[in-house]
Amino acid sequence: MALEASAKGLFPIAPTPFTPDGAIDFDSIDRLTDFYGECGSTGMTVLGVMGEAPKLDGAEALDVARRYIKRAPQLPVIVGVSAPGFAAMRRLSMAAMDAGAAGVMIAPPNTLRTDDQIVTYYRQAVEAIGADIPFCIQDFPLTFTVVMTPGVIRRIITDNPSCVMLKHEDWPGLEKISTLRKWEAEGSLRHVSILCGNGGLFLDFETERGADGAMTGYAFPDMLADLVRLAAAGERDAAHDLFDAHLPLLRYEQQQGIGLAVRKYVMARRGLIASDAQRAPAGGLSATAKAEVEYLLARLATKDKRATAARRTPC
Amino acid sequence: MALEASAKGLFPIAPTPFTPDGAIDFDSIDRLTDFYGECGSTGMTVLGVMGEAPKLDGAEALDVARRYIKRAPQLPVIVGVSAPGFAAMRRLSMAAMDAGAAGVMIAPPNTLRTDDQIVTYYRQAVEAIGADIPFCIQDFPLTFTVVMTPGVIRRIITDNPSCVMLKHEDWPGLEKISTLRKWEAEGSLRHVSILCGNGGLFLDFETERGADGAMTGYAFPDMLADLVRLAAAGERDAAHDLFDAHLPLLRYEQQQGIGLAVRKYVMARRGLIASDAQRAPAGGLSATAKAEVEYLLARLATKDKRATAARRTPC
Amino acid sequence: MALEASAKGLFPIAPTPFTPDGAIDFDSIDRLTDFYGECGSTGMTVLGVMGEAPKLDGAEALDVARRYIKRAPQLPVIVGVSAPGFAAMRRLSMAAMDAGAAGVMIAPPNTLRTDDQIVTYYRQAVEAIGADIPFCIQDFPLTFTVVMTPGVIRRIITDNPSCVMLKHEDWPGLEKISTLRKWEAEGSLRHVSILCGNGGLFLDFETERGADGAMTGYAFPDMLADLVRLAAAGERDAAHDLFDAHLPLLRYEQQQGIGLAVRKYVMARRGLIASDAQRAPAGGLSATAKAEVEYLLARLATKDKRATAARRTPC
Amino acid sequence: MALEASAKGLFPIAPTPFTPDGAIDFDSIDRLTDFYGECGSTGMTVLGVMGEAPKLDGAEALDVARRYIKRAPQLPVIVGVSAPGFAAMRRLSMAAMDAGAAGVMIAPPNTLRTDDQIVTYYRQAVEAIGADIPFCIQDFPLTFTVVMTPGVIRRIITDNPSCVMLKHEDWPGLEKISTLRKWEAEGSLRHVSILCGNGGLFLDFETERGADGAMTGYAFPDMLADLVRLAAAGERDAAHDLFDAHLPLLRYEQQQGIGLAVRKYVMARRGLIASDAQRAPAGGLSATAKAEVEYLLARLATKDKRATAARRTPC
Repeated sequence: MALEASAKGLFPIAPTPFTPDGAIDFDSIDRLTDFYGECGSTGMTVLGVMGEAPKLDGAEALDVARRYIKRAPQLPVIVGVSAPGFAAMRRLSMAAMDAGAAGVMIAPPNTLRTDDQIVTYYRQAVEAIGADIPFCIQDFPLTFTVVMTPGVIRRIITDNPSCVMLKHEDWPGLEKISTLRKWEAEGSLRHVSILCGNGGLFLDFETERGADGAMTGYAFPDMLADLVRLAAAGERDAAHDLFDAHLPLLRYEQQQGIGLAVRKYVMARRGLIASDAQRAPAGGLSATAKAEVEYLLARLATKDKRATAARRTPC
Repeated sequence: MALEASAKGLFPIAPTPFTPDGAIDFDSIDRLTDFYGECGSTGMTVLGVMGEAPKLDGAEALDVARRYIKRAPQLPVIVGVSAPGFAAMRRLSMAAMDAGAAGVMIAPPNTLRTDDQIVTYYRQAVEAIGADIPFCIQDFPLTFTVVMTPGVIRRIITDNPSCVMLKHEDWPGLEKISTLRKWEAEGSLRHVSILCGNGGLFLDFETERGADGAMTGYAFPDMLADLVRLAAAGERDAAHDLFDAHLPLLRYEQQQGIGLAVRKYVMARRGLIASDAQRAPAGGLSATAKAEVEYLLARLATKDKRATAARRTPC
Repeated sequence: MALEASAKGLFPIAPTPFTPDGAIDFDSIDRLTDFYGECGSTGMTVLGVMGEAPKLDGAEALDVARRYIKRAPQLPVIVGVSAPGFAAMRRLSMAAMDAGAAGVMIAPPNTLRTDDQIVTYYRQAVEAIGADIPFCIQDFPLTFTVVMTPGVIRRIITDNPSCVMLKHEDWPGLEKISTLRKWEAEGSLRHVSILCGNGGLFLDFETERGADGAMTGYAFPDMLADLVRLAAAGERDAAHDLFDAHLPLLRYEQQQGIGLAVRKYVMARRGLIASDAQRAPAGGLSATAKAEVEYLLARLATKDKRATAARRTPC
Repeated sequence: MALEASAKGLFPIAPTPFTPDGAIDFDSIDRLTDFYGECGSTGMTVLGVMGEAPKLDGAEALDVARRYIKRAPQLPVIVGVSAPGFAAMRRLSMAAMDAGAAGVMIAPPNTLRTDDQIVTYYRQAVEAIGADIPFCIQDFPLTFTVVMTPGVIRRIITDNPSCVMLKHEDWPGLEKISTLRKWEAEGSLRHVSILCGNGGLFLDFETERGADGAMTGYAFPDMLADLVRLAAAGERDAAHDLFDAHLPLLRYEQQQGIGLAVRKYVMARRGLIASDAQRAPAGGLSATAKAEVEYLLARLATKDKRATAARRTPC
């Protein structure tokens, strides 16, 4: 199953569940994968930044990817292969595809500055991994400090036929989506799938601007899937009602450094993973922060009963 | 009237209103100042980044500061004096205080990296402007790329008796407030006022963590004032209800580069300023973006009637 | 006298001399200007980063520029007008031209990233100052963190007829000069003057690559002038012999933060300025560092007798 | 053989030789290692940035390290283990020590900003690799954008008994060495070895400030070894004479991005490695640049006959 430019819907950014002693929790991978499938995900992305990929050694990373892929044979799985050099990127890409991945995701290293540097980097990356592996550009300036104009994205897409997807998480980024879709309508850019990240903070409008869906890791992926469906169905008000109900918590999760702690805490609360453990370096939650999350869940529960279910025994 | 460490409430970040041809719109300054006073502001901050200070020449900047100060004789006014060098900072500080300012705000230049560099910078700034001018630290890493630990902030406060306020806009930043307030409770840090910026995105919890109020420029400063009051009164649920109603729009305004365009657009819609004009360089709003703001205002109006009043003739 | 694209030779980056108590030392400006003229400078650049421009207030900056211009009526003087906003840039540019400047120099703010952002910035700067003021691009990534490809420089030159000069101080940068000159030879780029900075660390080869001369502030501007002349005369070995003799000291002066202290120390030693005083913030020289400079001067004196003359009474 | 705080002399930064088709050239590793030993090296450092470590996959990296270690059983070999996460760092450290390495070198990731972040990073790194592996701090702000004050270095050394060495390549950095040595003399800092990098651009004075030697990769490591010996013997003038003779070429090699191309070109010219091939991404030398290097070698040959020997058949 190869990743395609026609991809739509929700590709959750899958966390890597750990046990409290730091081992990979494969049972939680299975449980979470099942949940992703049941709530309507159309794919998955593993070993991203929020998947704590850098905290895994090479063998572990592959084990995680394989487990996700094996549990969801019906879903295309994208594997993050960003690496400090092309040799490691190539090796991981090969191994991921051998394991059944549908494609890979490549983020730019934070030393790139000029348009040409960025375009050249993706060309060299494709030379390294081979032109037959479908790949997704990760455009996340807030984290990577690399700023890609729409024109640069067009050059990457045009230069590399194996580019089939953009993980859009620029901020602000609504006009970027509109520009790319306008170029597509005008015929100066072939279609690629645009799935949006950045914690989903603008997903309500991104879908209206022409995005095909979401690729992020909010603790309620079921909400993200519903939102994308409602937007695709043209049910604008319902989509915003749902989004707005979740926005206070979603915004709280969207804090660099501790966001993953919030996400795992809520996922564990929901029973999607067994523990909110992270490997070091990890931003933890203070008791006050946990109480704040509980308060937000309680408020959310008045509007979305899935949050009620989440409020089980505290971790 | 000198700025004091006991300051609380709302110090709106005042924009600089322009006419469509780029002239300073002094009438709008008056109108806006009156509104700030009426809605319960306890101070004002002018010539900040969002006040388009760098787009004013020296004489214009002083004219703007003077007009705000003159119109609100009952309110302490903070003047942003960040400058590429201490000579310009000194000159502007002197002039601002002569014009009746209550204090000044100083942001760190984005070349600072180490703890010592930051502490030294503030010491030299105070040497330049004089130890008798009360000042506010602006801690905004997202924009300035300077990261101040709580320990660095404590060193600045302790070294400089004229430091009376922290404009807190770190992100994430809730634990920073808690740490500073804990140190204060333990006696290892004297009290300074903490007012929160960053577009207000976490103001609901910042007040609960010990912040004294807000210093930001959201297009509904009246909401910010209400929120701070409700939080101070212990009306937690009401505070969050109000905040959550505004969060979709507040989040939309919190987009770097175009956020000010949204803010001025809504302020003009509300009649608080005559035009949403900015001087170059300015991020503008596309027709789609304006329609999105209108949609958010319409949705907000169902929960806060001040948004209804805002939906007058489009600009 | 307007700055022209045919400019060649040496435009020293003039320091701003201060007295030990921090006042501007206008007598030293006169003395230094005379020396620049006598040693064969073909122009001057004032109020650059190394001219401590940010440490002057607006009135002082103009006084410094005027004094340099008045003392050297025969030389075109470029005034640095980089500023945090276009209003201040416009005001300083107007005033500088009124005072008799030949042109201005504009550095990009360190927030720019993409090619388009850089090109747009220069277009807006020209709109602000007016298309009739000749200007020089300052391309110094090491200090400004803005990386301009040759293609971006070509766009700026092509878009703005008033662009007549490039202060080239990229590192590494030899291929950039070759590329620009190749484009000029091919007819795809009009000629602008290229003068090289970056402390002169590669000036020996930059002249061979097609640069028209130097714009930097090494404490022996007379050496720079000689080097440019020798290179222009095709006396390659002699040029390198001279350069190599100075390289140990020139390299020592090329240390960010303390380089200006070295430069002023040697200039004061040579009697070109009365004092090596800087305004804060300033990197000073330890006793060990001064002894190292003395040692380098003593070694240099065996090859260039101008260094002997320099070894007078220590400051 | 464990790396010790008493280490002195020259630890060359060993390149990774490749054949023109990109394979690792193990024969050249042997030849180069022999040369390092013969010219008086007291250790070696492999898999650094200039060793193209990121361009090797995990298995290759270990093969390179093992070959160097095996060929020089008498020399302590430091292995660069900087990695995007602690899991990979731990794995490589374990493998390197198993292969006979004397210690490892750890650079800070370029996302660190505050003093505490840097100190915490090294503490966590030591937790990851184990407190029994001697390690070297790499302090190279120009490349990593992480600025460590002397105080931060002292904290790292004090916190981690397994820290035995500092690779000093701050710029400017002479005062940093003096400060650390002063603290050592005062008893507030235990002794660690300080070896200097940054291409050797200030090695002439670094040795005089208290550095124990060099750890850099200039194409004439034999010159570096001689310089360190002369300095240690107190032959100041002779040390500087030698250094100054090489400075024009050494400076030319010290160009980010293409410096390694110069280094490998000259090493191949000298017969130390078979080819100057690099893996992508690689900065190449234009024909003009090669001619410039030849010119510099010819000039150097008049002062150091080792450069004559280098001028054999062009690559």
